[in-house]
Parts: sequence; structure tokens; C-alpha cells
Amino acid sequence: MLEIVKGILRGERRSLAKAISVIDNDEPDSQTIIREIFDKTGNARTVGFTGSGGAGKSSLIGKLVPRFHDKGYKVAILAVDPTSPVTGGAILGDRVRMQDSIDDERVFMRSIASRGAVGGISKSLRNIIRILDAAGYNLILVESVGAGQLEVEISKIVNLTVVVFMPNTGDNLQAIKAGLTEIGDIYIVNKGDLEGSNTLFNSILDLIGNCDKKTPVLKVSAKTGKGTKELALTIDGILKTERSGYKEKQRKMLESELKSMTLDILEQRALRRLNSDEKYYFFVTELLKKRIDPYQAAEALALSILDGSEGRS
Amino acid sequence: MLEIVKGILRGERRSLAKAISVIDNDEPDSQTIIREIFDKTGNARTVGFTGSGGAGKSSLIGKLVPRFHDKGYKVAILAVDPTSPVTGGAILGDRVRMQDSIDDERVFMRSIASRGAVGGISKSLRNIIRILDAAGYNLILVESVGAGQLEVEISKIVNLTVVVFMPNTGDNLQAIKAGLTEIGDIYIVNKGDLEGSNTLFNSILDLIGNCDKKTPVLKVSAKTGKGTKELALTIDGILKTERSGYKEKQRKMLESELKSMTLDILEQRALRRLNSDEKYYFFVTELLKKRIDPYQAAEALALSILDGSEGRS
Repeated sequence: MLEIVKGILRGERRSLAKAISVIDNDEPDSQTIIREIFDKTGNARTVGFTGSGGAGKSSLIGKLVPRFHDKGYKVAILAVDPTSPVTGGAILGDRVRMQDSIDDERVFMRSIASRGAVGGISKSLRNIIRILDAAGYNLILVESVGAGQLEVEISKIVNLTVVVFMPNTGDNLQAIKAGLTEIGDIYIVNKGDLEGSNTLFNSILDLIGNCDKKTPVLKVSAKTGKGTKELALTIDGILKTERSGYKEKQRKMLESELKSMTLDILEQRALRRLNSDEKYYFFVTELLKKRIDPYQAAEALALSILDGSEGRS
Repeated sequence: MLEIVKGILRGERRSLAKAISVIDNDEPDSQTIIREIFDKTGNARTVGFTGSGGAGKSSLIGKLVPRFHDKGYKVAILAVDPTSPVTGGAILGDRVRMQDSIDDERVFMRSIASRGAVGGISKSLRNIIRILDAAGYNLILVESVGAGQLEVEISKIVNLTVVVFMPNTGDNLQAIKAGLTEIGDIYIVNKGDLEGSNTLFNSILDLIGNCDKKTPVLKVSAKTGKGTKELALTIDGILKTERSGYKEKQRKMLESELKSMTLDILEQRALRRLNSDEKYYFFVTELLKKRIDPYQAAEALALSILDGSEGRS
């Protein structure tokens, strides 16, 4: 067994930090690590927190952590930073606020980059959760910013998604319409004392009312802590009642993970073959000369990669 | 030859509209249409316009169109609407403003949906451009909203990208940092008379100065038309001088298109095989029982799809 794997299973922070970097950078050791810890996983529950920047997600998480400790959870926090699809550089990166608000040695905290590629984050996030799971963390909070494809992907990986809104920000209603109401299992109006919070609260109720789900909508104040006890209770309650349907959901998640990993491997092999296949360069020249069209060329190349096996199976 | 193809080549609007729908919905006729028009393409040049909502892209395009007509271009406009990744419903959709500002029968205008899937828009956009190209439009303007992965994808498809900023909007500098300065070939400060336009202008110069590119930065007013003549001249100039490097760029674009189409076909076939493969369901059960890990399972499935051809090629 790898030294790092022993460290993970003992819950050593240095091993955890290193293993997460290995996964996040998709280094070759990722496979070995996951292979060796996989049968020690399955105890952790995961909660996603999303909402626009400045909605107060980090402070809210800071207030929730002690309450989860009281309920006996061992908590880890993963913050997913959106990065520019071109530069790969983090826009936010500044996690100091959260570090400050959670002054508790028991909590493991880590930022991971999303690197623009949505598929990439799904794979590494699943495996990083496994590492924390194997290390004994049984409640993993995943924070991300926004309402895009990334948040939809994360909502498919975690057991439960909390969407955090703040009153009086112009983009709120647009964000609600843009799909956030379909990924959330719980909706939060943070800064619930501010003017406008009732309007926002009612807009959310109206919108999710149409979806015919019994989704909790709560007003909290991450600043004063008001409402956070109820929120922690609600999350804990859902995680616990969910255990009945958990097996089926787990199977669905594994099915979709297995599909996307298989397609990833196929894509890597296909690209390797294409780049070394003179047929590929020949077809590009034929395309430039308009002697073949893109559909014909792609069809022929795909068949050549599958190596005629299409007809046999 | 299909009736619709004859219509496209004659430049009939009804055929064009129908063909674009066929492509946009990825109907089976797409292949036949592209196959039959492919050797009539290659004359159109394409310009992307991006920037946040409200930056005045539509009005700007409205002011540019008559100037492009004066230079002998036949202009078509494609507006890419971002849609929610979950609902598929368009957030914007309201193209009335642009329709109003371009009261010219010669211009062909059309909205297409992005459907959240970035790869999807690339494929349909390339083929819709081909249809307009075959119909005789030799300048195609592609408008999109934002600074995300979608705009990066579009910038790879068009010959030249114009990024439109507006002074005094909070997100401007963040958008600049988020990668817009790397996709633009021309930067526009719209509403150049407003206070704050100089600050914005200088910030853009500073940021792209670091990139060591000779990228034009222009102040215009889409409202009064001020500066739009110079902008049209700049675009025309770049499109014309670019012709020297055009062949090489065209080859690169075709290479990447061919790769992604080949991978698409492989993925479709692979998914079809997976769904009907009992090995796949067996592996999911084994994963749930932790008797195999995700890497092993995916590796085995990928190999089974490639049907052992891996060893022979």
C-alpha cells in the first residue's frame, strides 16, 4: 500500500492535502489512490452551497459548522473556484474570509479549481470527496459561485444542494429563472433582515411552487446567526430521511460516473489515434479541397478508430 | 438534389430559414444539406460580437450594417441566445430591438439557441454559417452575450471577434480579467461620451498591452453613430489583410471541427453500446459492492467498446 494511502486512512492532513492535489492535477497516482481507498468509502454525505458572489455563502457555512459538530458530524469544506476558460487563472481565489470565520482545527478546508472544463471538475470532485470520506469526514460541504453549468454538474454529485440568495441584488430574479430553482433542495434568503427580503422570499416560493416540490425556503442571517440552527436541522433531517432512497440515488450517480469515465478513456485513445493517423491529415486536406464533406470524413474516421468492430458486435 | 438545397443556393429566405432550423435541431437532413452545399462554401467572412447584456451590441450592429453594405458586403446576422442548462428555455429571446434597428430587407437575421451545451452550438453554428455562405451572404455577424465558455467557443469559429464594453458597469473590469481580453481582435468602448469611458478605455489598453498584441481599441457611440465608420473600416481592413494567413487558419479550424465531430460519433456509438451492454450494469453492481473501483470498471468497458482492436492497430 502507498504511504499516502496509509496517511489518508489515518486522517493525516498532510497526506490528505497531497492526495487532493494529485487528484486535482489528474496525476497518474490518482488511479492507484482511488483504487486503494475505494472500499473504505460510502459513509460521507455531501451538501452543495451555491449562489452569486457576495450572497454570504462562506459566512453562512462558518455559522453552520459548529451546529453540524454538535450533531456529531466531522466536517470538511471544499470551495470550487471558477477559473477563466482561457487563462485558467482563478477569478476569486480569496478564501481568507472563510478561513477566518471558521476557526476550528477539526474542519478540513480546501479550494479546488474548476479550470473551465465542467466535465473535469465532476471527476475530480467525486474523487476528492472519496478521499475525505475514507479519511473519516462524514459531512462534506461543497461551495461554488454562480448559476451555470458548473453548479448543475455539482448538484448531480452532492446529496443535497442549498441555494443562497440575497435581497436587492439585480441578478437575483434572473438567476432564479436561469435554472437555480431546479437544482436546489433548500433555498435560503440570506440577510433576511434587509428590506426586500420578503419580496425575494415570496418570488422564490412562487417560482418553486410551480415545480410541485416540497422544497424548504428559509430566511437566515449569516451575520447574526439567526435561522442557522433551523437550517442545520433541516439539512440534517433531509440527509437522514434520504437514507431510504439513498441506494437508488447512489446507483444512478455511479452509472453516470462510469459512463463519463468510459467516454473519457475512449476520447483519450481516439485522440491519440487521430493525431498519429495519416488518414486524419488526408481528410483535412480533402475537406479544404471540398472533395469530401465534414460528415463523411468524421464518419470514416470514427469507423477506422472502432477498427471495423462495429459490424461484429 | 433536395428542393431545400436548390432554395438555399438561390438564396430563398424560406429555404434558408427552414435549413437553419433543421441544423439547429440536429435533424437527420442536416447531413444531406451540408453534404450538398459544402463545395459552394468558402466565400463568407465571419465577425463575432460579444459583451455583457446592455452593452449595446445590437444597436452597434444596426449602425454597422449600412456601412458594410457600402463596402459591397451581403450581410447576415446570427444572434446566439444563452439558455438555461436545466430548462433549455431562453433567458433573453427578445430580439425585437435589433429587428427594429435594422430596417433593411437585404439583411438576413436569425436567433439560434445555445442550449447550454457548448459543444452543440459550435457544431450548429459552423453549419449554419455554411448555409448562409452557400446562399451568397459573404459577411456573417454573430452576436452573443457574456464572457463564458460559449464566447470562447464562438471566437474559435469566427474570423474576428469584437468585444463591446460600456462604461460604469461594475462587472466590466472583472469581465476583462475573466478572459475577454484574450478572445478579442477589436475592443469597443460603447457610449464613449459617458463619464468613465476614458478610465475604461485606459484599463483595456493596459490589460491588452501586456499581451503584446496590436489590438485596436475604439470608442464609439452606437446611439449617434460616432466612431462606427472607423470601426467598419477596421473590421474590413482586418478581414482583407487576413486573407494571407487565411488558408492556415482555415485548416486549423477544419482540423478541430473534424476531431470534435469524430469524437461525437464515437460517443454516440459508445453510449448506444453501453446502454445495451450487460457488462455495464454488472460493473455498476460491482461498484456498489466495492468489488471493483471506477477506474478498473471504466477501463474494462472502454476496451470492450473498442472490441479488442486496441492491440491490433
